[in-house]
Amino acid sequence: MSGFHVHPAAINESNDVGSSTRIWANAHVMSGARIGSHCNIGEGVFIEAGVIVGDHVTVKNGVALWEGVRLDDFVFVGPGAVFTNDLRPRSHPDLRTPRTEWLPTNVREGATIGANATVVCGNDVGAWAFVAAGAVVVRPVLRHALVAGNPARRAGWVCRCAETLSASLECGKCGRAYDRADGGLVSK
Amino acid sequence: MSGFHVHPAAINESNDVGSSTRIWANAHVMSGARIGSHCNIGEGVFIEAGVIVGDHVTVKNGVALWEGVRLDDFVFVGPGAVFTNDLRPRSHPDLRTPRTEWLPTNVREGATIGANATVVCGNDVGAWAFVAAGAVVVRPVLRHALVAGNPARRAGWVCRCAETLSASLECGKCGRAYDRADGGLVSK
Amino acid sequence: MSGFHVHPAAINESNDVGSSTRIWANAHVMSGARIGSHCNIGEGVFIEAGVIVGDHVTVKNGVALWEGVRLDDFVFVGPGAVFTNDLRPRSHPDLRTPRTEWLPTNVREGATIGANATVVCGNDVGAWAFVAAGAVVVRPVLRHALVAGNPARRAGWVCRCAETLSASLECGKCGRAYDRADGGLVSK
Repeated sequence: MSGFHVHPAAINESNDVGSSTRIWANAHVMSGARIGSHCNIGEGVFIEAGVIVGDHVTVKNGVALWEGVRLDDFVFVGPGAVFTNDLRPRSHPDLRTPRTEWLPTNVREGATIGANATVVCGNDVGAWAFVAAGAVVVRPVLRHALVAGNPARRAGWVCRCAETLSASLECGKCGRAYDRADGGLVSK
Repeated sequence: MSGFHVHPAAINESNDVGSSTRIWANAHVMSGARIGSHCNIGEGVFIEAGVIVGDHVTVKNGVALWEGVRLDDFVFVGPGAVFTNDLRPRSHPDLRTPRTEWLPTNVREGATIGANATVVCGNDVGAWAFVAAGAVVVRPVLRHALVAGNPARRAGWVCRCAETLSASLECGKCGRAYDRADGGLVSK
Repeated sequence: MSGFHVHPAAINESNDVGSSTRIWANAHVMSGARIGSHCNIGEGVFIEAGVIVGDHVTVKNGVALWEGVRLDDFVFVGPGAVFTNDLRPRSHPDLRTPRTEWLPTNVREGATIGANATVVCGNDVGAWAFVAAGAVVVRPVLRHALVAGNPARRAGWVCRCAETLSASLECGKCGRAYDRADGGLVSK
């Protein structure tokens, strides 16, 4: 419980926050949420019980992480991005989705969720993928895929460094090279 | 004024909140807003004077309800959904829309507004309709319609239980059946 | 430092806020942000160091203005609109975009950014332009242009008064007339 920073105007109720993590004003981390080390939890972020956030994760302002959302190490979530955990929400007490039918969303290592993107639950985002700003994800996103639009479609592949890859799957910026493999790309 | 719950970090200025309603942290309900019973007003929600919210309504995190917005009983508003009340907003003092030209938005019984959806004012959402996550509503939404995309278009019909209906307008999940009628579907 | 209003539940750390400006609950203005006079800074708005906001600007609820964003006089930013300043964000410490590569976003005099719109950094929005609700701006927006959709495309031209112009570039509502010029329209 030591070695992390909570802004005086934030509410942290979790006893499982890693070292060097910073939680900014008006954020609210609930008891039972697990947050790794060296994370940046932005202003007004809400993190529900049961959420798991890895190390070196950035969650920008105004994002809510619901039970069932898991962010692996090095994930970036842009400002105003929105997650869900109920595919068919209704508010009538007789029509609510049983908790056993809520769907998880796993965002894998190093992926980026762009500003104001929407990730519909049950659709995992592969490692180092890049969901463009404003995209609405309604299908799983492959490793290293760049997706954009509403609904989000694959618009290319991106490098770990986030540069778009040419057809040869080599990065013109950092030189990393990739091969196609099940579920997207893997480093050569 | 009794029997509802306000989080210590919320601001409630309304004297018209129904029993068993919960108002979560950093929410702000203004004087002159009317909220029914058994509602769930999420973290960071803002409810302006003049807004009317029915019973058993859920408003998830970060939603603002402006003067002119009315949510009937059993409405669900997903996280980050955005309403408006001015079709042509300008900030120059000589160019502001007179309040008499602001447009209302009525969301009818049981409807769902999906996560991060946008509802442009003046477009009512019919009973039990379902606005998909990320949709941008620029036309009225019929009863029981499912709409998606930017701009939002009708992508099907949904049951009260939120399941998509087949062409026969019978629900494969709960068995309810519907007929076409002016303005969408009605229960058989 | 006098003559402006800060809600008791807001945090203002700037010593450069103009007269008659109002800062609402749960907003946070950082030290080093510059805000003009007669502005309306809505609930939950976040304004980072280095941001410049002109006079008579309206920023509705939940908007974050990042370093590099500049709003000229009379700009309107709708609720839930999202800005960015990093085109290729990654959270891994070895992959972060150097601050020298962050991109600015200038919103010129009188422009409107609609509700829940997304403005990708590096794309200026011209004077009196109108970004429709839910639009995702990935290219610069011309003066007086109306843009909509994801990605945002030009759907017409608008008057200073925000009315859509006919092909003659005269406003049927207020009578103002325009000529085409580099970068959009200019008043006749």
